[in-house]
Amino acid sequence: METIRIALLGAGTVGRALVELLPQHQARFEGLDLKVELAKVLVRDANKSRPGIPGRILSHQVEGFLHDVDVLVEVAGGTTQAGEVVLEALEAGIPVVSANKALLAERWEELRTYAEEGQLYYEASVMAGTPVLGALQSLWGNQTLELNGIVNGTCSYIIRRMEEGRAYAEAFEEAGALGYLEADPNLDVGGIDAAHKLTVLARLTVDPGLPWEQVRARTRGISHLTPQMLAEAHAEGQAVRLVASLYPENGAWVATVRTVKLPLNHALVTMGSGRNALVYQGDPIGELVFAGAGAGGGVTASAVLSDLYKVFLGTPGHLPIPAALPMPKTEVERLEEV
Amino acid sequence: METIRIALLGAGTVGRALVELLPQHQARFEGLDLKVELAKVLVRDANKSRPGIPGRILSHQVEGFLHDVDVLVEVAGGTTQAGEVVLEALEAGIPVVSANKALLAERWEELRTYAEEGQLYYEASVMAGTPVLGALQSLWGNQTLELNGIVNGTCSYIIRRMEEGRAYAEAFEEAGALGYLEADPNLDVGGIDAAHKLTVLARLTVDPGLPWEQVRARTRGISHLTPQMLAEAHAEGQAVRLVASLYPENGAWVATVRTVKLPLNHALVTMGSGRNALVYQGDPIGELVFAGAGAGGGVTASAVLSDLYKVFLGTPGHLPIPAALPMPKTEVERLEEV
Repeated sequence: METIRIALLGAGTVGRALVELLPQHQARFEGLDLKVELAKVLVRDANKSRPGIPGRILSHQVEGFLHDVDVLVEVAGGTTQAGEVVLEALEAGIPVVSANKALLAERWEELRTYAEEGQLYYEASVMAGTPVLGALQSLWGNQTLELNGIVNGTCSYIIRRMEEGRAYAEAFEEAGALGYLEADPNLDVGGIDAAHKLTVLARLTVDPGLPWEQVRARTRGISHLTPQMLAEAHAEGQAVRLVASLYPENGAWVATVRTVKLPLNHALVTMGSGRNALVYQGDPIGELVFAGAGAGGGVTASAVLSDLYKVFLGTPGHLPIPAALPMPKTEVERLEEV
Repeated sequence: METIRIALLGAGTVGRALVELLPQHQARFEGLDLKVELAKVLVRDANKSRPGIPGRILSHQVEGFLHDVDVLVEVAGGTTQAGEVVLEALEAGIPVVSANKALLAERWEELRTYAEEGQLYYEASVMAGTPVLGALQSLWGNQTLELNGIVNGTCSYIIRRMEEGRAYAEAFEEAGALGYLEADPNLDVGGIDAAHKLTVLARLTVDPGLPWEQVRARTRGISHLTPQMLAEAHAEGQAVRLVASLYPENGAWVATVRTVKLPLNHALVTMGSGRNALVYQGDPIGELVFAGAGAGGGVTASAVLSDLYKVFLGTPGHLPIPAALPMPKTEVERLEEV
């Protein structure tokens, strides 16, 4: 029996959910002749008690953290310290499973080679446990025409509360009280989190080298919305949503996040209420719809564990697309911005 | 530049669509340093003219067909001759891309080892180009609780025509006139095609060794339906659909195909009209919905080509799940059969 020693960076909601999930899979690990062991957990405060995690494996020392481990799981978030540890692991030939969309979006130039070699696994980074990255990589036989997604549940929640008449500030506060907001709420309501995810999706479908800055420059959030605007749209049979979109324009791919009007019967509205949804248009496949939970500790941990299985089985991570196909000849009908 | 020589078994709708699709990807193949060449096409009648396929590569001779080729694409269907050629290729170490759900379902015992070694690629076999197999293999971190799918578009079409008042025989004839029916229509209306697909799905989620006979024994079709039954269901706010289901019962997995009543707002009804849809329930992920085209030459060929990219990149095919997890403790609410 082979022992797999996991180094876990981050013991927040996702990390703790993963620690809870692992024992449920023990029998299956054994069926693979594997002993999966949580070897080390790196956290900011190693003295804080963490249920389910023995104190002896907790550390706040980056130095030596990757010594004698077989895989790094990074669920800490952020682009600085997490980035350094992830890069150190990759350089040392250690496979990395990451749920960190910010890191993937913003430091792709440093990560890309490892991703292309299959050493970096990141299904959890977009729509949490909803397996859209696995799905997109079974679509290379298509010319991508367009992609639209509702990929930030917090914004959806705030907008739905505003549809019920609450002012933006009030809905924003409610989301905060429920724990839906990131530590830096601008990641959610400024559209940045959605833009991070869109960047990952766009690189897996049309442009492996898409620069983050280009998506960032075309990202707007939801703070300009008012209950009146939403009510007026509704009176016209439309719903306003924060949508991440990828489409061709003047012979180049545009990746943008902004609020748009959608018909009430649009798949993003019907499937994307209370969850994340992605609508892919391709040729010859036509329209595909994927919908599921896009946040939550257990939900995200399930994708991390799915990636861990791929590590155990020696299946490579998410290889970027080989190269872009020629631009599609058809231009898509643009969604109406709000 | 490396040359990849494709042997194509079958030049029906899917085979011809693949032949049309390949040239559109030439630039991308070249970016991978590959020259992809359609080397041989095996058909029943080699004298029939096939647009886009040079006569010199057409053959009806099985002998020597696999000589000097790098990958076999099998889109002929059927379990006998196609099965012999597929097995000959696998035994010779040639990777195989197959869209043949009947073969996969019924001759799995012979194919399983090759599938588990990643030599057999079959995304196209379930829901055509809608990439559910890729998606399911990013769900190993979950305990599967239930799976329900509308995976045969022909039955959906016939049922929808009956909802508009046509008798079964009339709707059946219409489907035939539109070319929607398999050569043996019982594959469609007897539920067999749906059962083939369900068998593939069940093996990738809960039981790699699930015997076909077990699914076959719990498969019923749609020929008992009448417009009256559908109208009565509709009056109760329900729609009748042929649904392929996988659920736990008395500590064992049940895979069954039969007509059931679904609420009109069920995701299978809203997303599965005019296309295929699959609803997956798992723990911790909750409910996932996948919807897209489930038939058609180009649509199916796109999945075959996506699999070919995986062959080119050295990514393994659909590995079955490592081993079943313990049975879920929760029993699901059973759908009402009709």
